[in-house]
Amino acid sequence: MLKLDFHPAGRHFLQIPGPSPVPDRILRAMSYPTIDHRGPEFGALGLKVLDGIKKIFKTQQPVVIYPASGTGAWEAALSNTLSPGDHVLMFETGHFATLWKKMAENLGLKPEFLGLPGIEGWRRGVQPQMIEARLREDTQHAIKAVCVVHNETSTGVTSDIAAVRRAIDAAGHPALLLVDTISGLACADYRHDEWGVDVTVSGSQKGLMLPPGISFNAVSPKAIEAGKQAKLPRAFWDWTEIIEMNKSGYWPYTPNTNLLYGLYEALDMILGEGLDNVFARHDRLAEACRRAVRAWGLEIQCADPSVYSPVLTGVMMPDGVDADAVRKVIYERFDMSLGTGLGKMKGRMFRIGHLGDCNDLTLMATLSGVEMGLQIAGVPVAASGLPAAMEFLMSQPNATKLKAAA
Amino acid sequence: MLKLDFHPAGRHFLQIPGPSPVPDRILRAMSYPTIDHRGPEFGALGLKVLDGIKKIFKTQQPVVIYPASGTGAWEAALSNTLSPGDHVLMFETGHFATLWKKMAENLGLKPEFLGLPGIEGWRRGVQPQMIEARLREDTQHAIKAVCVVHNETSTGVTSDIAAVRRAIDAAGHPALLLVDTISGLACADYRHDEWGVDVTVSGSQKGLMLPPGISFNAVSPKAIEAGKQAKLPRAFWDWTEIIEMNKSGYWPYTPNTNLLYGLYEALDMILGEGLDNVFARHDRLAEACRRAVRAWGLEIQCADPSVYSPVLTGVMMPDGVDADAVRKVIYERFDMSLGTGLGKMKGRMFRIGHLGDCNDLTLMATLSGVEMGLQIAGVPVAASGLPAAMEFLMSQPNATKLKAAA
Amino acid sequence: MLKLDFHPAGRHFLQIPGPSPVPDRILRAMSYPTIDHRGPEFGALGLKVLDGIKKIFKTQQPVVIYPASGTGAWEAALSNTLSPGDHVLMFETGHFATLWKKMAENLGLKPEFLGLPGIEGWRRGVQPQMIEARLREDTQHAIKAVCVVHNETSTGVTSDIAAVRRAIDAAGHPALLLVDTISGLACADYRHDEWGVDVTVSGSQKGLMLPPGISFNAVSPKAIEAGKQAKLPRAFWDWTEIIEMNKSGYWPYTPNTNLLYGLYEALDMILGEGLDNVFARHDRLAEACRRAVRAWGLEIQCADPSVYSPVLTGVMMPDGVDADAVRKVIYERFDMSLGTGLGKMKGRMFRIGHLGDCNDLTLMATLSGVEMGLQIAGVPVAASGLPAAMEFLMSQPNATKLKAAA
Amino acid sequence: MLKLDFHPAGRHFLQIPGPSPVPDRILRAMSYPTIDHRGPEFGALGLKVLDGIKKIFKTQQPVVIYPASGTGAWEAALSNTLSPGDHVLMFETGHFATLWKKMAENLGLKPEFLGLPGIEGWRRGVQPQMIEARLREDTQHAIKAVCVVHNETSTGVTSDIAAVRRAIDAAGHPALLLVDTISGLACADYRHDEWGVDVTVSGSQKGLMLPPGISFNAVSPKAIEAGKQAKLPRAFWDWTEIIEMNKSGYWPYTPNTNLLYGLYEALDMILGEGLDNVFARHDRLAEACRRAVRAWGLEIQCADPSVYSPVLTGVMMPDGVDADAVRKVIYERFDMSLGTGLGKMKGRMFRIGHLGDCNDLTLMATLSGVEMGLQIAGVPVAASGLPAAMEFLMSQPNATKLKAAA
Repeated sequence: MLKLDFHPAGRHFLQIPGPSPVPDRILRAMSYPTIDHRGPEFGALGLKVLDGIKKIFKTQQPVVIYPASGTGAWEAALSNTLSPGDHVLMFETGHFATLWKKMAENLGLKPEFLGLPGIEGWRRGVQPQMIEARLREDTQHAIKAVCVVHNETSTGVTSDIAAVRRAIDAAGHPALLLVDTISGLACADYRHDEWGVDVTVSGSQKGLMLPPGISFNAVSPKAIEAGKQAKLPRAFWDWTEIIEMNKSGYWPYTPNTNLLYGLYEALDMILGEGLDNVFARHDRLAEACRRAVRAWGLEIQCADPSVYSPVLTGVMMPDGVDADAVRKVIYERFDMSLGTGLGKMKGRMFRIGHLGDCNDLTLMATLSGVEMGLQIAGVPVAASGLPAAMEFLMSQPNATKLKAAA
Repeated sequence: MLKLDFHPAGRHFLQIPGPSPVPDRILRAMSYPTIDHRGPEFGALGLKVLDGIKKIFKTQQPVVIYPASGTGAWEAALSNTLSPGDHVLMFETGHFATLWKKMAENLGLKPEFLGLPGIEGWRRGVQPQMIEARLREDTQHAIKAVCVVHNETSTGVTSDIAAVRRAIDAAGHPALLLVDTISGLACADYRHDEWGVDVTVSGSQKGLMLPPGISFNAVSPKAIEAGKQAKLPRAFWDWTEIIEMNKSGYWPYTPNTNLLYGLYEALDMILGEGLDNVFARHDRLAEACRRAVRAWGLEIQCADPSVYSPVLTGVMMPDGVDADAVRKVIYERFDMSLGTGLGKMKGRMFRIGHLGDCNDLTLMATLSGVEMGLQIAGVPVAASGLPAAMEFLMSQPNATKLKAAA
Repeated sequence: MLKLDFHPAGRHFLQIPGPSPVPDRILRAMSYPTIDHRGPEFGALGLKVLDGIKKIFKTQQPVVIYPASGTGAWEAALSNTLSPGDHVLMFETGHFATLWKKMAENLGLKPEFLGLPGIEGWRRGVQPQMIEARLREDTQHAIKAVCVVHNETSTGVTSDIAAVRRAIDAAGHPALLLVDTISGLACADYRHDEWGVDVTVSGSQKGLMLPPGISFNAVSPKAIEAGKQAKLPRAFWDWTEIIEMNKSGYWPYTPNTNLLYGLYEALDMILGEGLDNVFARHDRLAEACRRAVRAWGLEIQCADPSVYSPVLTGVMMPDGVDADAVRKVIYERFDMSLGTGLGKMKGRMFRIGHLGDCNDLTLMATLSGVEMGLQIAGVPVAASGLPAAMEFLMSQPNATKLKAAA
Repeated sequence: MLKLDFHPAGRHFLQIPGPSPVPDRILRAMSYPTIDHRGPEFGALGLKVLDGIKKIFKTQQPVVIYPASGTGAWEAALSNTLSPGDHVLMFETGHFATLWKKMAENLGLKPEFLGLPGIEGWRRGVQPQMIEARLREDTQHAIKAVCVVHNETSTGVTSDIAAVRRAIDAAGHPALLLVDTISGLACADYRHDEWGVDVTVSGSQKGLMLPPGISFNAVSPKAIEAGKQAKLPRAFWDWTEIIEMNKSGYWPYTPNTNLLYGLYEALDMILGEGLDNVFARHDRLAEACRRAVRAWGLEIQCADPSVYSPVLTGVMMPDGVDADAVRKVIYERFDMSLGTGLGKMKGRMFRIGHLGDCNDLTLMATLSGVEMGLQIAGVPVAASGLPAAMEFLMSQPNATKLKAAA
């Protein structure tokens, strides 16, 4: 029999930008006994998680929880609001934006892909002025939705969603705003209501620190209204009946009970730490990571400091270095997983995840492993990476205190 | 903070026909650390579960595992093989057959619902001769698929799928055969290849003893071929890319890693006990349950002994008795959950689940609770129920031996 | 590799009188990460469990928690209060009283064993008037301690400790009163302070529902005073330094951290249900069990109804029946463990545990398994056992409500 | 209710020299259901762990497993082999040697404490020639046992036990050799049989990676023979009956079942990695740690490189620096626990544990936290600590490979 414990002595470092390491607290919560999803206890659980998750999205509107992984929530956002042949405007921020566009095509939509030339779009995030310009041209309002990725997991760029909203408004265009923040939620500040997002798509396995398997659509009244006219065939993803039954804490079909236990625990952890503290912690660790990368003499993939991601850092390799060869060294020598370069960036960079259940010392372990791996792989790096990170961490104490010390 | 442990001293008895009680072994397996779904360990895990699950479906063909609950696999079966407006023949075996038909309508298909009149169809299972007759009329082959439910969870009837196959063949009709065995798999014998099923739909939370959250499509070459022409929009459910990537043990999008750990353990348990032993155990417990019901003087919902379900037993209430009031008594007094009557049977019956991780003594506990609950609720029942069950259990030893005694 | 999961499908029924089934909640609590036993969190935990456990013993005095199983706490009670050659009066209630006496001899004490003749002492519990009479004879106060077992796990007799206290007082004798309630604590009412007990010995694996591994001495001021003169060599068991360090929540040597997590959870469960409710539940299940035994036509070992144990029931076999052969049938056919007859009762009886995490339906499962096992083993029993138990259970609702229903 | 999860986001670093971090695999194994300690499954488990633990001690003789924490095993070693008033020779290696001596006094033995003057004995380990000299003087063989600590947890010195054996033999003295390797076992090479040790004392919560709660005596035939004459009162610790019952896999009193599950898993992990690989890993991490300490410009407590401990490193503070103030900074700022200075070393040093479930990156995290803490606390340290450790780690690859890569 295959042993599922693959790793040798000492903890594996899972430093990909999601799935992020699942805290023991959440694994334990997921081991509560599965209950009758039509019984009274389930209703109590359902109401709790449905209420709590709204705080994370910063919304007063319904958040639909699907018993499916994140890709499904992309499909839900499209199929609940659009009709076959609808024109949608998408922005090429990286690999995941590209996959979402491909999905739109598969579903029979007509996506138009805006973006900066070459790999520039993969280094700078959404350009609201390009969206505004394009919408102004669309005087017939053929474009039904604008789809953007908030935190592009393939690049380490966190786009400015409020600016996208302003761009749409400036153009006076009625298109829906659909946003993917699968990897941004509970890591970077996100405001579904304040930013006027119509559908926000997210998943469990990133900032929420859960295993993959549930995903989310936060919806606006405008999105619900659009859904009444939307003609894409839908059943599993149809949010109408879900939203209706959620009022009493139930779902029309079997929910993913044990992941909801995990979600309950995750909400308790995140809201207990305080959302602002969670964001500050991510910002701090990300900045420490970037200082190390720069001190090594390497380039950060995100070329615009105003949109650095607090979730992950893309590290560019010097010409001639295969990033995946470096990753392999690190994996085999130091039992750490890093994210590979995707799509256009294949082999040219790797990604360091510093999201979810991370702290100063796990970051330092991660940076140590990266530095040693780079050296073993023959990539010339300066030795000043770790000191740069430590200097920053020492100068900016973590806002979250130990409970017992509190 | 809400405590997730709702139950007082002593174990809750979850005797609904699924989700079934999740064994501790599986809960423990689900708590292995989430790993990189693109790393080498994941590939090893993926290949193992993809291979093992074929044995459960008794197929040599691909089995697609979706990171979504069972309702999604219904949609996958339809959207991968059919086109908008396609005519499909479905058989009304009960509530879940009715829900599948509703889904087909929502997806833009044209389902035709065959069935026996009144509630007879909910007590007798699929009538193959009716299907054959209908297909013979369809000389133009407008019907693209025949959809039937193997084990109807709402009634306790397990239809004869081989006979449905023979009926289609006898009619010389090219329609695809799509079968839902969400609650039958790993409880009742099922033979995807031998019975010539084109798509078999199943889920995790019944005979596989997992929490809800993953689901299955076993597919035939004919189904794959049909998929190439099928025009229903699809992305998340599209099995083409999944089957391709599964060859190396991976998925195109994030799989439900921790439930796959659970699946791995479930396969080890089921194949370790032996599929035939698993089926024999279910048959034995089901027969003991029915003998108790009859001895109480109550009617079993399934009116045809040749299609009794080994998964659950529907118990009809005498006229004037509200089955849900009985269930409430049992829940509150004895901390046991039973299945409610669904659809046409609302209030007229309840369902006793005896599937998955069950044995003689958990069945006896269940029957004791039912008998006491009936008496407290004022339903006149004879006291001979438990003796009848015990007499049968004593006469038919369990084929599965303790490991340590072996 | 040996798989530690020995049991086939369905839950094993562990119906021995301890270790009792450990609830999942406690197993989960025991999986919290081990922490620094000198750090601040540990002190918070220590204070909590040291305070909570007093409520279970109904004492205001210190309760010493040893990182050792129950037999160790027997030794601690003796070695902390007595000197080599000390005369102690012990009462033969059964096998465990006999083992405690043997320990006293091994430690160099001079135990005197009072008791009823033959097996009568094993069926009737402590006779306070015999103790009083013996103490009155001891005008020189050579007897330094009276040692009795509260709940005799080998027989199912719960002696009246308050009466023993009255007997000692009536005799005007200064002997210490040492009581073993290893299997009685948190099942039967116990009042360390009110009953004037000097040392109460208990363990984790019975009413507290924990695995074995920690044990207790509740001590009186008189016992502490006696300890200052006691000359039995002691180090590990010496309670002086432990009591001193416990004031701040710590221990002088490494405590059993993870079992203390479990204890914390057990206290939360027991005090949450309410001690009186816990006792009432045990009484109810015990009475239902005895009614079944009598209805089968079998004899209950405890011959005095005023001292029936709420923890376990000893079931006497008819002449010529080997009780262990019956147990073996039940174990192999129904995957249930019962307690063997010990010492004088070897082969003549078996013991049904109904303690800790038990409820109505687990009791009914247990009784069903016993009845079937007796029949298969050829022991003639009437079929009215289960109805007798159910009639009682129906007439006496459980006082503990489901949380979600509350 | 107190939440037992005290730590904020990210894993707490438990870098004390024991209890060491318990791997999830072991925590999971400990959550198997408690079974009947008199049933057949238990016997199978018992035989397995009793056999496996011998490999760790490198002995063919019995290893007694006590359901008690390590201090108890100290007492067991003494009380099983000695009589009141016996003269024993002990060597002052540090705090734990001192505590063992105090225990010997409490038990009525007459320990004589050899040692180097001042704190020298706490920096250099056992001096075999001093033992030899003292034994030569003891021509009457009044000394019954020589007691030494193998790995002194309070100092980070691992004494040469084979040399002690040679010293005793050279003196031609019949004294027993009793060795405490509570913190050394499964970290440093240890050879009970080859080194002629009579009783080896150990515990669970160090190299075996378990929570505290079980402890060990490996015994020689000579020790067993001595036990027959030993007159210290004993019952719980008496190994005679335990060794006898262990032949069939059982214990005379209730064992700590769930920790034995954990032990089984620990043995599987350690023997699976290979004892030699485990030792090499500890040596490597310890050397990397020492290089960092030296590069910081700090002194290692152990002054003799031939007895550096692979388990922990004692770090001396410059004059005027309170080591506990540094520890507090590190605890509060970086959520890491280090060991305090004990006894004579209070406030003068702290201890870094690098034992058990550790690897390169957890060590680097630890060293990063120490370096930052020192700087924040105002201790002047050179920045070359981490580079020194990394240079060594890069030059000496870990011998243990990932399973999936193998």
